Amino acid sequence: MNGPLEGIRVLDLSRHLAGPFAAMTLGDLGADVIKVETPGSGDDTRRFPPYWNGVSTYYLSTNRNKRGITLNLKTPEGQEIARKLAARSDILIENFRPGTMERFGLGYEQLKEINPRLIYAAVSAFGSDGPDKDKAGVDLLMQAATGLMSITGEAGRPPVRAGTSLIDLTAGANAVQGVLAALYFRERSGQGQRVEVSLLGAGVSWLTYHATAYFATGQVPERLGSYHNAVAPYGAYPTSDGFLVVAVATDALWRRFCAALGLDDIVDDPRFASNPDRLAHRDELDAILNPVLTGKTADEWTEILTSAGVACGPVNTLDKVLSMPQVLHDELVVEIPRHDIPDFKMAGLAIKLKGTPGTIRMPPPDLGEHNEEVLGELGYTGADIRRLRESEVID
Amino acid sequence: MNGPLEGIRVLDLSRHLAGPFAAMTLGDLGADVIKVETPGSGDDTRRFPPYWNGVSTYYLSTNRNKRGITLNLKTPEGQEIARKLAARSDILIENFRPGTMERFGLGYEQLKEINPRLIYAAVSAFGSDGPDKDKAGVDLLMQAATGLMSITGEAGRPPVRAGTSLIDLTAGANAVQGVLAALYFRERSGQGQRVEVSLLGAGVSWLTYHATAYFATGQVPERLGSYHNAVAPYGAYPTSDGFLVVAVATDALWRRFCAALGLDDIVDDPRFASNPDRLAHRDELDAILNPVLTGKTADEWTEILTSAGVACGPVNTLDKVLSMPQVLHDELVVEIPRHDIPDFKMAGLAIKLKGTPGTIRMPPPDLGEHNEEVLGELGYTGADIRRLRESEVID
Repeated sequence: MNGPLEGIRVLDLSRHLAGPFAAMTLGDLGADVIKVETPGSGDDTRRFPPYWNGVSTYYLSTNRNKRGITLNLKTPEGQEIARKLAARSDILIENFRPGTMERFGLGYEQLKEINPRLIYAAVSAFGSDGPDKDKAGVDLLMQAATGLMSITGEAGRPPVRAGTSLIDLTAGANAVQGVLAALYFRERSGQGQRVEVSLLGAGVSWLTYHATAYFATGQVPERLGSYHNAVAPYGAYPTSDGFLVVAVATDALWRRFCAALGLDDIVDDPRFASNPDRLAHRDELDAILNPVLTGKTADEWTEILTSAGVACGPVNTLDKVLSMPQVLHDELVVEIPRHDIPDFKMAGLAIKLKGTPGTIRMPPPDLGEHNEEVLGELGYTGADIRRLRESEVID
Repeated sequence: MNGPLEGIRVLDLSRHLAGPFAAMTLGDLGADVIKVETPGSGDDTRRFPPYWNGVSTYYLSTNRNKRGITLNLKTPEGQEIARKLAARSDILIENFRPGTMERFGLGYEQLKEINPRLIYAAVSAFGSDGPDKDKAGVDLLMQAATGLMSITGEAGRPPVRAGTSLIDLTAGANAVQGVLAALYFRERSGQGQRVEVSLLGAGVSWLTYHATAYFATGQVPERLGSYHNAVAPYGAYPTSDGFLVVAVATDALWRRFCAALGLDDIVDDPRFASNPDRLAHRDELDAILNPVLTGKTADEWTEILTSAGVACGPVNTLDKVLSMPQVLHDELVVEIPRHDIPDFKMAGLAIKLKGTPGTIRMPPPDLGEHNEEVLGELGYTGADIRRLRESEVID
């Protein structure tokens, strides 16, 4: 079987990252996902570089396990086809601006009439209601708006963006959670419902301990680079071939750490004897540690310090990560040959069901690749499809 | 009703962040969650500062909507009680090192015998199998191991940690997705199963477009601060009272941006006329923009530039975020008075089901707060409970 969601049909009307990532996860878990794109142009991400044999790597990264069709949702016939697809779908995902789906005749209240079992997931920047509901949001702006950027970066230097689009990906993960909870409820009640997730909610909910600490103390958290606000040494240090992270959480570990580095002379230095001392003299401590740590590679130090019981590891660059034996063992990189990219590979599914595992079945589709197949399933004939193509409802 | 998962019972044997966050989400969605902690000490996070009226804000941030009991899982009686709880649970979440649950007699194969419908979620650092399966992982080390840290930070400066524990939180979100997919499958098949998520998988799966771009080009991505590798001006700029992010994605927006800043003289400067020009001369461009942008506040520039159609917004600090009208409107901050913290507040639930919304019902429990209540539900008498307390099986 294809996974726990085998038999579930997903209509993916979303673009960019959050919605497509959510729909891909549902596909990985066994659902039949139909991705709908605008004729001619398709998902904007198809034009995001770099390209792999002419295909956007950005687009490729979140669209496996989907069948792809094109549909002009601004035409009555395109809307009619979308309604037919929604009528036989279990789940719909969209991330248009609030109000757009209603103008297409595809709003939740409209689709509920023809399919009360439908679970309709709306992904938006700020929510479907409230003072900011019409604001757009891209990941950079939302990392800034939600406070995550204010706490990412070095002390005394500008805020930086977390290097991946974590707000979008979190919103996608939230959409999947909401949809699956609704699906479980539907099994018991027969009732579908509307599910909403926002980029704003994704970022704010992930403030977790920062939010409670702020409410408790009134202190606004600052950027710390890779440091810890209460432990030293802790963070990223340069080595001869890259950075190493270390976490020396106790005085016992401090002694072992110094011994492993051949720095027994500083163990009882009054500037460093206890964790509060080390915190107060972090710059002086780093000035001593850096020349020693740059004398070996990150892997060498990892071996030495791990033997000494100190939590540590290299700051892996992507070439290292994506070839780690454990990553390959866990099938976190998957190969899915495409007709035009025979060696296509991408990050895998991180959600592992041991009884009914998810499956990687199909590479990301070309624009409109499954038009005939999907329209055929709806009962359209070859002549119908030619007519739809001529009137630019589909490609 | 309490949410789509009303009637579902969750046994939360997890500690720290990933597992407790997952269990809290299930509780928010209506499940009855029992959090099990070690007598005397409890979850390690109870000792993570800062404190709110003596209670750890870290602990408080991921444990609402749970009943709390203590249980010494190293004793036969503690294990027996845990087995009784597992026998009547739908979902179990644990994040012990691989092998520990088996030693407690609580491994999946053991519990499946007494409850074949159980969905058992194991959260680990690197997975339950493979060369690194016994390695421990904390968020810093896993941001480093999975490559996220290598792409977060400024160009030419050390890697930094994303300011929140995004690897743990992603693993928690993945656990919820896996558990809910398994729950749906169980409704159809009657069969429970084991679900596994790892911190490694959480980080690697979120490399998405970075991973495909690397596989396509062989180029290892670098740190960019808040810049974009293909668009300028883009990123965080200082203002008179904080940072502002701007994204000037087209030449048309560049003209509007310059007009709004009163910089019409540089619009057609050959160094900046097209996006490739601006990218090639980003430092010179920033040197012109910075003194202008520091002349007004981030909010003032946001108003001016938004009117000009330029995507922008302030880099909000947490005090701003957590009082934003839209955040309050979306119930992304919730108040849950606790007996010892009458004004307790925390980040809310970002997953919004409109038909059967999740609910915030209970503040995070004290250590062992629900011992009598939960053991009573299992049939233990007052005398039994006194005996268990005397033998230090519970508090």
